[in-house]
Amino acid sequence: MARYGPQFGPDVTFLGVPRCDLTDPSTFADADVVIVGAPFDGGTTHRPGTRFGPQAIRTTDYLPHDSSRPSLALRTDGLVDLRIYDAGDVEMFAGDVVTSLAGLRTEVAKVAGAGAIPVILGGDHAVTYADASGVADVLGHGRVSMVHFDAHADTGDIEFGSLWGHGAPMRRLIESGALRGDRFLQIGLRGYWPGPETLGWMAQQRMRSYEMTEIVARGLPECLTEAFAIATDECDGVFLSVDIDVCDPGHAPGTGTPEPGGLTARELLDSVRRICLELPVVGVDVVEVSPPYDHADITAALANRVVLEALSAIARRRRGDAWDPRQPLLDGR
Amino acid sequence: MARYGPQFGPDVTFLGVPRCDLTDPSTFADADVVIVGAPFDGGTTHRPGTRFGPQAIRTTDYLPHDSSRPSLALRTDGLVDLRIYDAGDVEMFAGDVVTSLAGLRTEVAKVAGAGAIPVILGGDHAVTYADASGVADVLGHGRVSMVHFDAHADTGDIEFGSLWGHGAPMRRLIESGALRGDRFLQIGLRGYWPGPETLGWMAQQRMRSYEMTEIVARGLPECLTEAFAIATDECDGVFLSVDIDVCDPGHAPGTGTPEPGGLTARELLDSVRRICLELPVVGVDVVEVSPPYDHADITAALANRVVLEALSAIARRRRGDAWDPRQPLLDGR
Amino acid sequence: MARYGPQFGPDVTFLGVPRCDLTDPSTFADADVVIVGAPFDGGTTHRPGTRFGPQAIRTTDYLPHDSSRPSLALRTDGLVDLRIYDAGDVEMFAGDVVTSLAGLRTEVAKVAGAGAIPVILGGDHAVTYADASGVADVLGHGRVSMVHFDAHADTGDIEFGSLWGHGAPMRRLIESGALRGDRFLQIGLRGYWPGPETLGWMAQQRMRSYEMTEIVARGLPECLTEAFAIATDECDGVFLSVDIDVCDPGHAPGTGTPEPGGLTARELLDSVRRICLELPVVGVDVVEVSPPYDHADITAALANRVVLEALSAIARRRRGDAWDPRQPLLDGR
Amino acid sequence: MARYGPQFGPDVTFLGVPRCDLTDPSTFADADVVIVGAPFDGGTTHRPGTRFGPQAIRTTDYLPHDSSRPSLALRTDGLVDLRIYDAGDVEMFAGDVVTSLAGLRTEVAKVAGAGAIPVILGGDHAVTYADASGVADVLGHGRVSMVHFDAHADTGDIEFGSLWGHGAPMRRLIESGALRGDRFLQIGLRGYWPGPETLGWMAQQRMRSYEMTEIVARGLPECLTEAFAIATDECDGVFLSVDIDVCDPGHAPGTGTPEPGGLTARELLDSVRRICLELPVVGVDVVEVSPPYDHADITAALANRVVLEALSAIARRRRGDAWDPRQPLLDGR
Amino acid sequence: MARYGPQFGPDVTFLGVPRCDLTDPSTFADADVVIVGAPFDGGTTHRPGTRFGPQAIRTTDYLPHDSSRPSLALRTDGLVDLRIYDAGDVEMFAGDVVTSLAGLRTEVAKVAGAGAIPVILGGDHAVTYADASGVADVLGHGRVSMVHFDAHADTGDIEFGSLWGHGAPMRRLIESGALRGDRFLQIGLRGYWPGPETLGWMAQQRMRSYEMTEIVARGLPECLTEAFAIATDECDGVFLSVDIDVCDPGHAPGTGTPEPGGLTARELLDSVRRICLELPVVGVDVVEVSPPYDHADITAALANRVVLEALSAIARRRRGDAWDPRQPLLDGR
Amino acid sequence: MARYGPQFGPDVTFLGVPRCDLTDPSTFADADVVIVGAPFDGGTTHRPGTRFGPQAIRTTDYLPHDSSRPSLALRTDGLVDLRIYDAGDVEMFAGDVVTSLAGLRTEVAKVAGAGAIPVILGGDHAVTYADASGVADVLGHGRVSMVHFDAHADTGDIEFGSLWGHGAPMRRLIESGALRGDRFLQIGLRGYWPGPETLGWMAQQRMRSYEMTEIVARGLPECLTEAFAIATDECDGVFLSVDIDVCDPGHAPGTGTPEPGGLTARELLDSVRRICLELPVVGVDVVEVSPPYDHADITAALANRVVLEALSAIARRRRGDAWDPRQPLLDGR
Repeated sequence: MARYGPQFGPDVTFLGVPRCDLTDPSTFADADVVIVGAPFDGGTTHRPGTRFGPQAIRTTDYLPHDSSRPSLALRTDGLVDLRIYDAGDVEMFAGDVVTSLAGLRTEVAKVAGAGAIPVILGGDHAVTYADASGVADVLGHGRVSMVHFDAHADTGDIEFGSLWGHGAPMRRLIESGALRGDRFLQIGLRGYWPGPETLGWMAQQRMRSYEMTEIVARGLPECLTEAFAIATDECDGVFLSVDIDVCDPGHAPGTGTPEPGGLTARELLDSVRRICLELPVVGVDVVEVSPPYDHADITAALANRVVLEALSAIARRRRGDAWDPRQPLLDGR
Repeated sequence: MARYGPQFGPDVTFLGVPRCDLTDPSTFADADVVIVGAPFDGGTTHRPGTRFGPQAIRTTDYLPHDSSRPSLALRTDGLVDLRIYDAGDVEMFAGDVVTSLAGLRTEVAKVAGAGAIPVILGGDHAVTYADASGVADVLGHGRVSMVHFDAHADTGDIEFGSLWGHGAPMRRLIESGALRGDRFLQIGLRGYWPGPETLGWMAQQRMRSYEMTEIVARGLPECLTEAFAIATDECDGVFLSVDIDVCDPGHAPGTGTPEPGGLTARELLDSVRRICLELPVVGVDVVEVSPPYDHADITAALANRVVLEALSAIARRRRGDAWDPRQPLLDGR
Repeated sequence: MARYGPQFGPDVTFLGVPRCDLTDPSTFADADVVIVGAPFDGGTTHRPGTRFGPQAIRTTDYLPHDSSRPSLALRTDGLVDLRIYDAGDVEMFAGDVVTSLAGLRTEVAKVAGAGAIPVILGGDHAVTYADASGVADVLGHGRVSMVHFDAHADTGDIEFGSLWGHGAPMRRLIESGALRGDRFLQIGLRGYWPGPETLGWMAQQRMRSYEMTEIVARGLPECLTEAFAIATDECDGVFLSVDIDVCDPGHAPGTGTPEPGGLTARELLDSVRRICLELPVVGVDVVEVSPPYDHADITAALANRVVLEALSAIARRRRGDAWDPRQPLLDGR
Repeated sequence: MARYGPQFGPDVTFLGVPRCDLTDPSTFADADVVIVGAPFDGGTTHRPGTRFGPQAIRTTDYLPHDSSRPSLALRTDGLVDLRIYDAGDVEMFAGDVVTSLAGLRTEVAKVAGAGAIPVILGGDHAVTYADASGVADVLGHGRVSMVHFDAHADTGDIEFGSLWGHGAPMRRLIESGALRGDRFLQIGLRGYWPGPETLGWMAQQRMRSYEMTEIVARGLPECLTEAFAIATDECDGVFLSVDIDVCDPGHAPGTGTPEPGGLTARELLDSVRRICLELPVVGVDVVEVSPPYDHADITAALANRVVLEALSAIARRRRGDAWDPRQPLLDGR
Repeated sequence: MARYGPQFGPDVTFLGVPRCDLTDPSTFADADVVIVGAPFDGGTTHRPGTRFGPQAIRTTDYLPHDSSRPSLALRTDGLVDLRIYDAGDVEMFAGDVVTSLAGLRTEVAKVAGAGAIPVILGGDHAVTYADASGVADVLGHGRVSMVHFDAHADTGDIEFGSLWGHGAPMRRLIESGALRGDRFLQIGLRGYWPGPETLGWMAQQRMRSYEMTEIVARGLPECLTEAFAIATDECDGVFLSVDIDVCDPGHAPGTGTPEPGGLTARELLDSVRRICLELPVVGVDVVEVSPPYDHADITAALANRVVLEALSAIARRRRGDAWDPRQPLLDGR
Repeated sequence: MARYGPQFGPDVTFLGVPRCDLTDPSTFADADVVIVGAPFDGGTTHRPGTRFGPQAIRTTDYLPHDSSRPSLALRTDGLVDLRIYDAGDVEMFAGDVVTSLAGLRTEVAKVAGAGAIPVILGGDHAVTYADASGVADVLGHGRVSMVHFDAHADTGDIEFGSLWGHGAPMRRLIESGALRGDRFLQIGLRGYWPGPETLGWMAQQRMRSYEMTEIVARGLPECLTEAFAIATDECDGVFLSVDIDVCDPGHAPGTGTPEPGGLTARELLDSVRRICLELPVVGVDVVEVSPPYDHADITAALANRVVLEALSAIARRRRGDAWDPRQPLLDGR
């Protein structure tokens, strides 16, 4: 079988969805969504372990792995209402970031080229360069905006002698022209990095970065609404990149560079739902889940739910009817 | 001595309160509250370990086990102001759910029959069938409403070939007539279970289930106020069932089926206080605490505080004077 | 699909060996070995978690799950040289030990009836009643001897009101006539259980139990040689039951009833190899692996290697040529 | 070298700031801030381990230890804009609280005497007696107010036969006259300690203690504003003492006496920023971080950020220009 | 009740043995053994946590806490065949080593004075000064020899400014004359402490210290036999002090100063059995068990078994008949 | 300062030894030993984390970091009797194995070129290619033999598309001619890797690999003696490479590819001592310590002791007098 399967552990798919083989276009020709694992932690500047992220995100759930997940909140079943396949992992050797990212970019572009939404399971944030580039290679450079949840701007330059570490993908995406700086929305930044020089570069690119003090002062819903308007201005689609460290370490300890003072898990899930309901999402990645630092699988479970929340909302958006979060559960449909 | 004591570990009582023996009615004839351990995890569909819940909830506290806990918030000492006994654990063999639940139901009914409030320390949520049935056996089927904190509806049908798993007790309680479906209030549901069929059954029973998106959109206090009105309509008492997984996994990792996006510990404690202050509580259980998955005992400590918050508020309700949460601590009494 | 797959987690097989379906005899008609998961911890008297044992034993390995494991020591590849299938898990509800064991016994007998060696992955030790009975049902009651590695004799009577807990399977096997007491060899007993009455019963059955002080004083190889002679006297085959707690807790912390002072992992692996090389093994189980109490997967890895060591040695025994442990690795074949 | 360095582990400084030697005044004559480690857990009444707090707070960060931390929120670099030295640890033998506290008090007074702000890294809360006394010894008894974040009032009397445990420092500070009871502001109290007698004593001292129910009912910002007015009335400076257990155990599990229902990490960081921006802080301590009970270093990381937030805000306050939390990050300076 | 009970946690006794009260001699007048908890970690120079040792050693067992433990190896039931009481813990404030040790010494002497064997559960090794002094105060200074299992000589002098740390008790015992240096047998030393000066002092005292290279080269049984001869020469009784760190960290991770390369758990248990069978033991302590650093309770379980092995062997020695470790279990009595 | 210092965490040296700067030859011109950190885990095929190995090995010790460690066994103080410097870490970006190894090789050669013994702290085993090549570049290709402790042969070919993973360094060393295959001694191999093809290649190179069954059957001392004879035949020096996974996972859980059934920690330490006493060691590395998977630092402590045992024995070998392991400690010098 040409299909690679997972790089680490047994050959399983996201909660049991069918497999596809990226070397055989017929296996995903009708896909709405294709899940791709990016088991890479060679770009990490601190705690590694995200190589085990794809497998953990695929399998961390207490329910049967039966390819069905009816959302209570949205009354859709993302895994049933959408045609979803799991392509397994792209082979990514930690010791060779350049080759690894190139391979990933090619595979993501195949998915986008087939008209499906790629949902990439990281891996450290270095993979987002490949993820978003792969989508933009198909949809057009400059035609895709970015909504980026993270504690960190990830707009750094060379680190440890490399252009390609997990602190730099957003700079590379903008420098390469794949994405426009002025359609780059960042949510949840905080802490003590980067310094003034990099912030100056970001301002020059006309990025819009919501630091946590602004979010607390203005309220997250207001910030999101503002960001959504920018994201859909002159762009055809939105890439959603979720670094799990946007959440407070109490909610997501299993990550490499935890920064206290972040969103709650609830806030992240509510935000992801809104984005996928309200915006034309063309790609998603969920990154920086590091199982060796997790406890009782709570970080992996959160990442699994971020994926499901996105899929459920994409399915609901396609269904087209209105959704009211205030509606009682048992009145719903 | 007829008293069984704890099934696992040494013979201790909840923070040192006196013991009683359910085979000797004279030992708890004057009780306001009787604590009963239900060390059972044979009903769990995923991570076990709640058999150690009763012992963990009884003992996880950094203060002396001296049978006194003055509440700062309420200015009562639940363990002193109420007559409380700990009956030890009911013998529950994990491998025999039917016999175990029957035994527990009988013992809980003894407590209720003596006019005391049973406070049951679980165990997985399967025990709530026995807990609430035992109370209803005494107070009358259909005369007790339920306020149920949980991430999950627990209204499923046969799982792993059994009617009695921890995903089904609420269905069994309503089907048996012990509790009325239309006086069944659920707070905190979320995630991807159950599916439409079960939700349809729930709607038919006229249950009222507050999913987290509704709670976030409307605010928890408003939802509680609405639920309280239903709970006290044509019912003589309220059973409070707290599944610790109603809290976010970041606040309660030590549980079997953690679902991201839940309440904070603070919200749960505030809710339990309000319920026990404002409603005629006739039974309480705290379930699904699984010490093997806990870290630094934070889940067990939370469950211990849920019990104390309930006892403190019951004591305050009996004292009868008004309580204002805005009053400064050192002005209080 | 009739095949059940694993009860918990995704549908995977032991290191990638092919699947079979116990409801379809044609799928394992040519099998040498069939692996069966017994995800049951309802019989445990203390720490649970062995329900996750089968999945952990199947997957805990740092090598690709490619259905090949060439043994350095034996120069066989058990997964290649033998025809091995994995039947998935038997459905076992923790809360119903009687039904669960009955179902398992039936499935194991199917495997034995097809002429294959069942290798059962526990689960707590209660499953061994079903495992060995299922084999004896086919090969004849009294025709199979037992070599039993354990810290505990597991010959207790009723516990927590049940005949079927994990402390009793060996008594049930002998009482039922499935196995002969005088062909029951126990290795590694120690500690403070059972008491004189049970030991008296064991002596009456003419069991041969090697306590650790005897093993230390005489040497493990001598004890094994003596035991082998008994095991093959008037019996047609040997069932090998390995309770991982036979090893010292330092080597196998992830178990429910750890007893200090046991074998090293090395001694266990060396013993399993000898048994499967020298004796006509007709069934194997590996039990009491409890992942929630494991650290860095070392207990699960040990159990995985116990299975591989058994399979490698069975393959080598079938090849028929002599094996010398003193032979240098690179001279070997 | 006279400088002691850390009591446990290698000789490192807070994120690489320069060292100073408290026995040589010239080494810190120009200091704005001097960091002092207080590696003492002999005062703890429950879980120990805070002796490793100073080292953990100094080093838990994923960024290079390069003595620079530009704050995104405040656009200052506390480690660069202020002259900061790390004096290493004061030698504190756990088994001798009296000698240990006396030594610490002397060293803190040296720092205050040099006109610098001492930032003490605990250690259990017993050290605050020495910390605040040392500052008051220089600035005048009764001239320094206290803002105290904690789950516990720490105003107990003799425990385990000692006046000096970590439950008593606030009583000792007021009794000794070092601090005024009516300028003692406590934020975040909750739970079941102390009892009425101690609360009566506190009321007599005219302390102002904000219990969590009051904070939830009124809002944290309003409570802080009220407290700030008291703290600056007739006092020359404010000592800020942060017991990490003011946060919910989900956000700060690594502590000795965790009390559910506390602040979020975000709320604590926002509060510390406001205090150091708006009040004349003359001393800071961060205590009760117990690494043995931490997970993935999240508690240590939070404490490190509490220190950085304080330093950043002190630097910003000295710069003197206004700060608006609503200002977009990339418009800022 | 005068009895103090445990300093931390609920009031339990060692595996359920009866309580006694050291303030009431009638409660232990007939005792063979009195268990005393010494919950002290104020003497530790590195990782603390041994304050929780007594409680962990008392309760870490998977069997019922029923005051009976029939030894398989020895065919005695130490808890039944001997009259054993548990006096609870001596109050020991970590912050005051001098007062704490004085109190402990007094209590131990009460036990010895009543003709019973004190079995002290530590606590860090500082407590051994009090333990052995208390026994020698009754039996005569110089009349008691010491068999001391440890990775460390514990003959250091002042550390962190104190004479009383856990690195020094053996020096204090010899200097004070309580014990003779030339009847001081140390087993299991290794590593990189102390230096030549202290070793010189030890040689001057004519101590006999078996370093691990000697033990490996000569064999542990031969070393023990040699040591036993010294221990019984001109002494009336033997004090057995077991620092759990004599075992390899793989077997006993839960300790403060782990030194790789130690005994196995099996070797320690075999040694303790021999000592208590062959020598006139007059006191025992088991120290340096630090639960916060333990995993799956394996260190606490080992310490519990060290106590049981000692009690079982003391009971067997009193019975007086010969014991052959080579005897098959089921032939035994 | 040109010196890089550690790549992760604060700038510390091995137990406080002086620093040197590899860009300034004068700083280590007189060195006997130079310690070099190789914080690289980009070559790992399974669990990462060895990037934190150098820092953990440098600092994991309960004694003061005072650059002195008197060996009880050998009566030398390796850190005092030898001139030892710590050069800090070589910058190694996980995502670029080729550049990283090239940089490390150059630095190691600098050390060897100065006549000092490089002691490299890994890092995953990929670094050994650079370590041994760097030494051979100075001492001559083919002039250095290898003694290699490991569970794995590490003679694999391309994995994950790379020649340079941690499963291949030994093949690369032999293929490149840096080391001779027939002077390559491997101790401790076991398990299920590599397959026949690779074993055939190894046999062709005339490597000598001691699998664990041979070691158990013949005894480790005899195997070592045999190996030593080969290692010193026609070679000028010996490189000692210790993969910590040569030990059983119970003794060294904190590693990436744990293989049950290995050496005890004691056996490894005894072997390292013998090698450095009896052979002309010219380079040492200690690799595969992965702190994220460690518990209570036992693996890091073992690796620290492997380094100290090597240094102590090198010092003793240079002193030149005989050493008898049977000599009592207090008679020694």
